[in-house]
Amino acid sequence: MKIAILLFERMAAQDAVGPYEVFRCVPGWELEFVGKRAGEVRCEGGLGLLVDRALDQVSEADAVVVPGGRGSDVLLDDEAVLAWLREIDATTKWTISVCTGALLLGAAGLLEGKRATSNWQALEELPKYGAEPVGGRWVEDGKTITAAGVTAGIDMALHLAGREAGREVAQAVQLGIEYDPDPPFDSGSPEKAPTAVVQAVAAASRANRA
Amino acid sequence: MKIAILLFERMAAQDAVGPYEVFRCVPGWELEFVGKRAGEVRCEGGLGLLVDRALDQVSEADAVVVPGGRGSDVLLDDEAVLAWLREIDATTKWTISVCTGALLLGAAGLLEGKRATSNWQALEELPKYGAEPVGGRWVEDGKTITAAGVTAGIDMALHLAGREAGREVAQAVQLGIEYDPDPPFDSGSPEKAPTAVVQAVAAASRANRA
Repeated sequence: MKIAILLFERMAAQDAVGPYEVFRCVPGWELEFVGKRAGEVRCEGGLGLLVDRALDQVSEADAVVVPGGRGSDVLLDDEAVLAWLREIDATTKWTISVCTGALLLGAAGLLEGKRATSNWQALEELPKYGAEPVGGRWVEDGKTITAAGVTAGIDMALHLAGREAGREVAQAVQLGIEYDPDPPFDSGSPEKAPTAVVQAVAAASRANRA
Repeated sequence: MKIAILLFERMAAQDAVGPYEVFRCVPGWELEFVGKRAGEVRCEGGLGLLVDRALDQVSEADAVVVPGGRGSDVLLDDEAVLAWLREIDATTKWTISVCTGALLLGAAGLLEGKRATSNWQALEELPKYGAEPVGGRWVEDGKTITAAGVTAGIDMALHLAGREAGREVAQAVQLGIEYDPDPPFDSGSPEKAPTAVVQAVAAASRANRA
């Protein structure tokens, strides 16, 4: 499979790198990094990533991955990016988002009538785009796969690796990246985190958006 | 804390980006990306990352993170890198590796007499450097923290965030990156993966090194 990963300013690096690290380990899968223009973008937190091909250089792919992060807000009315998403989606076998990347798919009109997920704080925005918000680490509806926040991209990518390349290949990739998660806290979802922590994170997000 | 993350050719992007995504969310923590020279490096799989500062521009840090990946092999006898690791370690509160980054710490003489971990396939190389191989997602011995393969960097980073910034901050970060892992397979360690999968991954690694 040829997979195009969209990169943009103020994205969350992990949203792209999680699926990337899984997909690059699947024999025969090829990745390319696409953005508004070739050259560097800076992620939330400052890491620089390199866009290798501009949008107009990539008109088809077997799969497209759309990450999220604070910078996705800016792209919600960027007609060049939304038009590219529609164009590439017309060629893909799989159209994929991680975190608030789902809102970009929505803004491009690609979630109409679909079940979808996103970052837990963005779920309520999905109906705006005609999508039905659903919980879980990822949601597959037709050819569209939406993953929950940030690290959910790893789980989603292993799912797709298994679906396309078979269970044993996906298991080998999981072993290769030693993905045997054992977080020191159990605070990764609003249902599991202490109430005070959920409130603090929600308040910080509101402040950041204001 | 000021945290220096080492970037190099053919590193595994996830090794650096996992801890990065956690650390960047801790209020007041600053990250910088250091490498042999400023400019791009290409990770295993082709993703370009940007080195912002050359080794000789960074002579102190509160923490240093050394990722792994195939390219770490090449650095095992790169005296400029090893000397920098010793120099920076003399200034750090925490010296950290992910995956085969542990072998770089070892080659720099920084694991002598320490308990440490690494990628499951590299554990047997640790005694060469005077280290005692230990299982688990991460091992803290004095100021040295070594994480297991690739994705273990996320668990390790949450541990350090909790240790330095407190449990509630670490829980908030975990919720922010929605780290509530739920892999579709249970194949992330050699103890859990099917024997045929373990053998296939080990054989592929041997072939890659040959």
